[in-house]
Amino acid sequence: MIRHCSIIDRYAFDKVYMCEVPNLNEAFPPCNMRNDCMTQQSTGEPSLWNRLLGPRDCILLEHVCGPGKARKLKALLRAGPRPLLHFPPKETVAAIVTCGGLCPGLNSVIHYVTETLLQNYGARRVIGIKGGFGGFYDADLEPLELTMDAVNGLQNQGGTLLGSSRGGFDLDKILLFLQKHEVTHLYVIGGDGTHRGADKIAHACLERKLNIAVAGIPKTIDNDVDLLDRSFGFTTSVEAAQNAIKVAVTEATCNLPNGIGIVKLMGRSSGFIAAYATMASGEVDLCLVPEAPIVLEGDKGCLPHLERVVADKGYAVVVVAEGAGEELLGASAETDASGNKKLPKIGEFMQAKIEEYFAKQGKQCSPKYIDPSYMVRSVPANASDQILCMQLAQNAVHAAMAGYTSFTVGMVNNKVVLIPISLITATSPRKLDPYGRTWERIISITLQPNTVPFRPVKGAAPREPEH
Amino acid sequence: MIRHCSIIDRYAFDKVYMCEVPNLNEAFPPCNMRNDCMTQQSTGEPSLWNRLLGPRDCILLEHVCGPGKARKLKALLRAGPRPLLHFPPKETVAAIVTCGGLCPGLNSVIHYVTETLLQNYGARRVIGIKGGFGGFYDADLEPLELTMDAVNGLQNQGGTLLGSSRGGFDLDKILLFLQKHEVTHLYVIGGDGTHRGADKIAHACLERKLNIAVAGIPKTIDNDVDLLDRSFGFTTSVEAAQNAIKVAVTEATCNLPNGIGIVKLMGRSSGFIAAYATMASGEVDLCLVPEAPIVLEGDKGCLPHLERVVADKGYAVVVVAEGAGEELLGASAETDASGNKKLPKIGEFMQAKIEEYFAKQGKQCSPKYIDPSYMVRSVPANASDQILCMQLAQNAVHAAMAGYTSFTVGMVNNKVVLIPISLITATSPRKLDPYGRTWERIISITLQPNTVPFRPVKGAAPREPEH
Amino acid sequence: MIRHCSIIDRYAFDKVYMCEVPNLNEAFPPCNMRNDCMTQQSTGEPSLWNRLLGPRDCILLEHVCGPGKARKLKALLRAGPRPLLHFPPKETVAAIVTCGGLCPGLNSVIHYVTETLLQNYGARRVIGIKGGFGGFYDADLEPLELTMDAVNGLQNQGGTLLGSSRGGFDLDKILLFLQKHEVTHLYVIGGDGTHRGADKIAHACLERKLNIAVAGIPKTIDNDVDLLDRSFGFTTSVEAAQNAIKVAVTEATCNLPNGIGIVKLMGRSSGFIAAYATMASGEVDLCLVPEAPIVLEGDKGCLPHLERVVADKGYAVVVVAEGAGEELLGASAETDASGNKKLPKIGEFMQAKIEEYFAKQGKQCSPKYIDPSYMVRSVPANASDQILCMQLAQNAVHAAMAGYTSFTVGMVNNKVVLIPISLITATSPRKLDPYGRTWERIISITLQPNTVPFRPVKGAAPREPEH
Amino acid sequence: MIRHCSIIDRYAFDKVYMCEVPNLNEAFPPCNMRNDCMTQQSTGEPSLWNRLLGPRDCILLEHVCGPGKARKLKALLRAGPRPLLHFPPKETVAAIVTCGGLCPGLNSVIHYVTETLLQNYGARRVIGIKGGFGGFYDADLEPLELTMDAVNGLQNQGGTLLGSSRGGFDLDKILLFLQKHEVTHLYVIGGDGTHRGADKIAHACLERKLNIAVAGIPKTIDNDVDLLDRSFGFTTSVEAAQNAIKVAVTEATCNLPNGIGIVKLMGRSSGFIAAYATMASGEVDLCLVPEAPIVLEGDKGCLPHLERVVADKGYAVVVVAEGAGEELLGASAETDASGNKKLPKIGEFMQAKIEEYFAKQGKQCSPKYIDPSYMVRSVPANASDQILCMQLAQNAVHAAMAGYTSFTVGMVNNKVVLIPISLITATSPRKLDPYGRTWERIISITLQPNTVPFRPVKGAAPREPEH
Repeated sequence: MIRHCSIIDRYAFDKVYMCEVPNLNEAFPPCNMRNDCMTQQSTGEPSLWNRLLGPRDCILLEHVCGPGKARKLKALLRAGPRPLLHFPPKETVAAIVTCGGLCPGLNSVIHYVTETLLQNYGARRVIGIKGGFGGFYDADLEPLELTMDAVNGLQNQGGTLLGSSRGGFDLDKILLFLQKHEVTHLYVIGGDGTHRGADKIAHACLERKLNIAVAGIPKTIDNDVDLLDRSFGFTTSVEAAQNAIKVAVTEATCNLPNGIGIVKLMGRSSGFIAAYATMASGEVDLCLVPEAPIVLEGDKGCLPHLERVVADKGYAVVVVAEGAGEELLGASAETDASGNKKLPKIGEFMQAKIEEYFAKQGKQCSPKYIDPSYMVRSVPANASDQILCMQLAQNAVHAAMAGYTSFTVGMVNNKVVLIPISLITATSPRKLDPYGRTWERIISITLQPNTVPFRPVKGAAPREPEH
Repeated sequence: MIRHCSIIDRYAFDKVYMCEVPNLNEAFPPCNMRNDCMTQQSTGEPSLWNRLLGPRDCILLEHVCGPGKARKLKALLRAGPRPLLHFPPKETVAAIVTCGGLCPGLNSVIHYVTETLLQNYGARRVIGIKGGFGGFYDADLEPLELTMDAVNGLQNQGGTLLGSSRGGFDLDKILLFLQKHEVTHLYVIGGDGTHRGADKIAHACLERKLNIAVAGIPKTIDNDVDLLDRSFGFTTSVEAAQNAIKVAVTEATCNLPNGIGIVKLMGRSSGFIAAYATMASGEVDLCLVPEAPIVLEGDKGCLPHLERVVADKGYAVVVVAEGAGEELLGASAETDASGNKKLPKIGEFMQAKIEEYFAKQGKQCSPKYIDPSYMVRSVPANASDQILCMQLAQNAVHAAMAGYTSFTVGMVNNKVVLIPISLITATSPRKLDPYGRTWERIISITLQPNTVPFRPVKGAAPREPEH
Repeated sequence: MIRHCSIIDRYAFDKVYMCEVPNLNEAFPPCNMRNDCMTQQSTGEPSLWNRLLGPRDCILLEHVCGPGKARKLKALLRAGPRPLLHFPPKETVAAIVTCGGLCPGLNSVIHYVTETLLQNYGARRVIGIKGGFGGFYDADLEPLELTMDAVNGLQNQGGTLLGSSRGGFDLDKILLFLQKHEVTHLYVIGGDGTHRGADKIAHACLERKLNIAVAGIPKTIDNDVDLLDRSFGFTTSVEAAQNAIKVAVTEATCNLPNGIGIVKLMGRSSGFIAAYATMASGEVDLCLVPEAPIVLEGDKGCLPHLERVVADKGYAVVVVAEGAGEELLGASAETDASGNKKLPKIGEFMQAKIEEYFAKQGKQCSPKYIDPSYMVRSVPANASDQILCMQLAQNAVHAAMAGYTSFTVGMVNNKVVLIPISLITATSPRKLDPYGRTWERIISITLQPNTVPFRPVKGAAPREPEH
Repeated sequence: MIRHCSIIDRYAFDKVYMCEVPNLNEAFPPCNMRNDCMTQQSTGEPSLWNRLLGPRDCILLEHVCGPGKARKLKALLRAGPRPLLHFPPKETVAAIVTCGGLCPGLNSVIHYVTETLLQNYGARRVIGIKGGFGGFYDADLEPLELTMDAVNGLQNQGGTLLGSSRGGFDLDKILLFLQKHEVTHLYVIGGDGTHRGADKIAHACLERKLNIAVAGIPKTIDNDVDLLDRSFGFTTSVEAAQNAIKVAVTEATCNLPNGIGIVKLMGRSSGFIAAYATMASGEVDLCLVPEAPIVLEGDKGCLPHLERVVADKGYAVVVVAEGAGEELLGASAETDASGNKKLPKIGEFMQAKIEEYFAKQGKQCSPKYIDPSYMVRSVPANASDQILCMQLAQNAVHAAMAGYTSFTVGMVNNKVVLIPISLITATSPRKLDPYGRTWERIISITLQPNTVPFRPVKGAAPREPEH
């Protein structure tokens, strides 16, 4: 009865289409030095990297196959050290900038980009730009010299050594800085908008004949950049959210009768943190995300669901993403200083609705509301994210040294790849697939009513990051 | 200059070969009930799973492609809920057993296997076998009734509710128990040896016409089961090891002059924990694993390397896997009560050698030795492992309900798959590829001399879990 | 030059006045069994306690002396095992009740009261009353049987096994319960109001000739019960607050320019948590408490102070007690369901004022506001509090077994004492002495302007808990 | 029945004897500047300390009273700011040195000594001596300039910025350094031996007419300095030990049958850490300390006790202080490089004995041994210890500014006092009182046989730190 393999010939593929990444070799003569410059401090002898990759090494974006799957295969360029360098290390000057909100792992990326450049490639200099793009030209924000001493141990600290600040993007002034300091590599750590800025810089460099590689490293605590298995900092934030959920469980079980704990988590447009925190905890009874409508009462209502849970267990725990419930509360027209629209106060709203609903049933209930806010994003990266940051940072440097530009690095199907920035900004922010496994798991764990409209499974569903 | 795709036609594939998983439908008539029994406590209405999988849904094992890659593709069966059940839920009785040493996440797997069976499928009963295989017949080890109440919150505790104990495997008595209690599902959580036992039970059931699905869930804190991206508990142990490394850094920096901190970590035959802990820390200067020979002195010597590091930074930190250095110290013929061979005391050995070497150079040095031992394995699973345990547990239940047997579940290329047990036991324990990216990264971070013999890159290298 | 002692004869004291604690021996005949009943499970042989205390063993409340100190000395009765028992252990039935909000250590007190009674004294039974005083008669709240198994490991969990709930106190129904279940000891864990209730029960028992000892164990996370060195749970909450302060430091340093982090901590009428958290952190630049008025602008203004700090360091961190600023915002007439008056939103107020003030100076500033709320009180007790809870619980039992009633236990000058409840409720809630060492230390660390009006040192200052 | 006070006139005291602390005013003319120099950065206006203390402000060492207590009272000088300064701040140069093993809080003491001197008193300079006393003259150990920037945030890091190293004490060279750098204050942080060294320096300064104040701050993780309520770092180490004990509980409960977990903790000659960790955990069944003999078998044997516990609960947890069992294993004549005698390996010995004993009874048992070693001492100070360090550091500075010398600071009866060094070195190391409350509590919690010989309670028992 046991066979090891059966041939599934109808899944044969005709062609693989690889998303190409621009390379400066096409516009500027490369130095073509051999990539053996990993000078080992210990022995002084040069040491080759284990495996050097070519321009056609790729990984399949879609490795799931089965009846009815398309035959056309997309692939992404593998990241890793290349045999020939575009830039001579001794002339390599890098600038690093972090933009937008804090995210666990920022310092780790800064540490490893610097370490790989200085220690492994022997680059000339690494400059840390303070306070986002504005730091290129804001007189109050003096750039930092990033040396090995300056980044020693940095990876284990929360926040970012470089700070971040609101908005600002003056292309000409940025290019002026790059030219003035003879920058050859620009590493930009940030989200969607930041990547669009990085792409503009990359194109402007090409147009103005500046031999500068621009590399992106996607930073989004919400895990909402498309294609990626996970963005750095995400697992740390899910871990950090557990503290709040544990407290919610304690409060709910101890506040008699009918104790309910509510935890608000980050997630403006996608509920990944809320959903993953729910799965990681296993003690949540209701998880509200932007991707599934909130229904308060009736058959699919979350309030009767909570009432049933409380009647059964004596208490209940709710996790709500900050962006959930817009369909209920209405989107605000206001925006904050960074241009993000102000979110309705869904946490407090739910707290009031629950109290009101229980009162209507003649039952006491004083829900406890917990908003861990910055306590989820300002912690140091956990071990998994440290490793991810290291992988991304090393590979960004490998790629830039080889002349790639206008790319971002990411983990896709468990391998680090180079992705053209234009590809990744086209489809972000990614949302939780309401017909995918993750949402299904939330329902199966919480048993909450599924408010996503029934839809027969057909056609290609959105790509889920991991399942 | 920017193009999105280029056709790489020489990577076209002819055929996909899928490793088949035995199914009880071939030997016993299935009940063929529709898998819509996820009775929602809240509403009472049945709810279909989002996506039901067929017998040919698979994922490619090797999704890396490029010049010179083989055209023959191996694939693994995707895990997930199936449209038809083999077992009627009301007649489903499951037994769960955990074998071998502790590993973070054991209680989480127990929690989610039980929850999925009772809460999502409405199974009749779940029995927890205490103390490993012996618990099936040892009169002192009364089985536990696993109810929803019994497993509530269990997932957040270290250890295993079921305990584990040394050896023991009496096939006949195990089958007797299964028959006596009308068990239809057996979930076996353990390592290599345990999986071989599970496979024997599965085959014996088929031979004796017992309609029982046997599912394995691979448990190895060392991450040394082949094919898998990572085994549950591994990232938690890497995280837990950080505490010891941090302390080693503090001791090393504070014990003047020439402070050195040494941390011993788990890893009998493979150095994954040591290597990943080194990458996650970023503060380690020497990482010793079983896969790379230890050279004490000379050009490639680790002692002169430490001397250089100490001269440069003032201190150094060493991580050593318990199984490293066998080529130096010799393998012991002795074994412990579980049949594992006794390991030479590499940690104490290195401590003595370092002290001796520095003394020979006329330098003071009193290395501080830290053995966190069980503090790495007895902690609760972190958030990432919680989610992994949930994914594995749910999918083991889905597969068993559909009649699959003699399989194990694992995360491969970021998707959960079903793997025939025989396939996974054939190639384990997996070792760190000394010519792979992970080892390369250790060298690039620590700058320690690479003692792995130079080998030109050719042929297929061993599969690395993640990079 | 070195002398060891000098006689300070003018400090000689005439008399010591000890605050007496009522004892049931005066109203009911004691059993007078010898207190040797600590049956050691191991050996079966009775074992005397190390030191048995008499009715005149006391500690001085004021052990500070010097010129001008009063000669009349107050003393408190020492807690500890006594030679003779009032209650025969076999007839001892205890009830435990926890009231009011959560506080770290509640479960620890429950654990140790139960353990001391059952394991050390061999008491007949311990009953856990659920949900506060209401649990004595609320049909929905079934009492728990507290056995050794039930409390095993309980001490390491946050919250309270018994739950708590709002208000309710029906003296007659409580006495009815006590009589019906033949309760001889009542342990009441709670704050001021709860202690007043306990005192009423104690007096009613005496009046109605019920031979029942009523013991209080003061619970106040705010550390605002007078006389005590510290109340249990307080150091844990100060510790827990550090997480929020660390995050505030990270946010402040990383949000350029002029980053400011604000942390709101508990403390309705006294600022002990805020003050101690400030001292424990050493990274706070402004600490606002109810005991010192908030001045916004001008010479003593906290806003110009923050501006100076930010100009100097680049960032600032603010800690504010929830009850601070009433003089600024006005007290609300509203109360919540527990009868506590609603506090003005001082945290959000300060956030707005800071933003406004910086804007007025033409400076950017977006203060980050963190309210860890329940994350400070729902955590398990730390080691220090565990030991304190054990000391209080054991001594409450020792005293009740010896017949003392209407008392509470507390740590005073580093020794556990018995205090008549009436004495402790008379002077609570205690406030931070604005002319004491603690507030002086806040000023010396933060360098914030001292808004407390200047007052020449004279007369007896309020008693500070610790310095 | 309720009375508040009764006069206990037979406790009246005749005299108070205060242990005097040497003051440099007697040998050198003081500057007698008013202590109003706390220049508030914010406002520039001088601000008096809240309460200035005189030379006769003291606290009673023994505040316990009762029948038969001695009438002669010892007192200690209170610590705090004094009205007049001995040293002009602008001429104050301080040196700080840390000696001996690491202890949580060292960096906190360094931070607060520096901050109080520079920020509150406006001292000229603070010099950090590296590597213990040897750092005064070892050419390899360059002193650190301690500025406010250098110590910012330092308090939250484990270890010591200054490092420590083995032995070395050259009085003449130390004095040479002090003179050369015009040092006026020397702060010495260390244990017994270090304090004896500090005392020698203080006396030599007086003899050689050097106007230098020498202040000790007692550092002993073992809490074995006499008189003190607790030494800094002690509660942190007890807290840190909980991680190891938790793991031991998990291992013991999960390793069937007869699981036993053993944790070795620090404590060469006194068992305070082991005893307090046992009390803080509440899950320990056997606690072995140097102060109570280890009896293996028989009526008082710990092995039969463990057998009974395991038979009852299924598992057992053992905590053993590293210095326990010398009477069993014999003291070693060997010493390590620091001159400490080598301890017998009591942990491994107990592990072997337990296994052997169970085997003799025909029972399986594989005890798990955990030695957290440096993981208990290299962690950052917890909140309680942070505050203690701040109190000690500030008061050491206050006292030195007022001219006191040859003293140490400590918390006694919950107040900080100044103690002549000679007094504290005379009676240390302190041991756990085997007839005191702490040991009694260990017995009452673990129910282990009390191996301390019975002794009727009489006479004055040794002073316990806290109960």
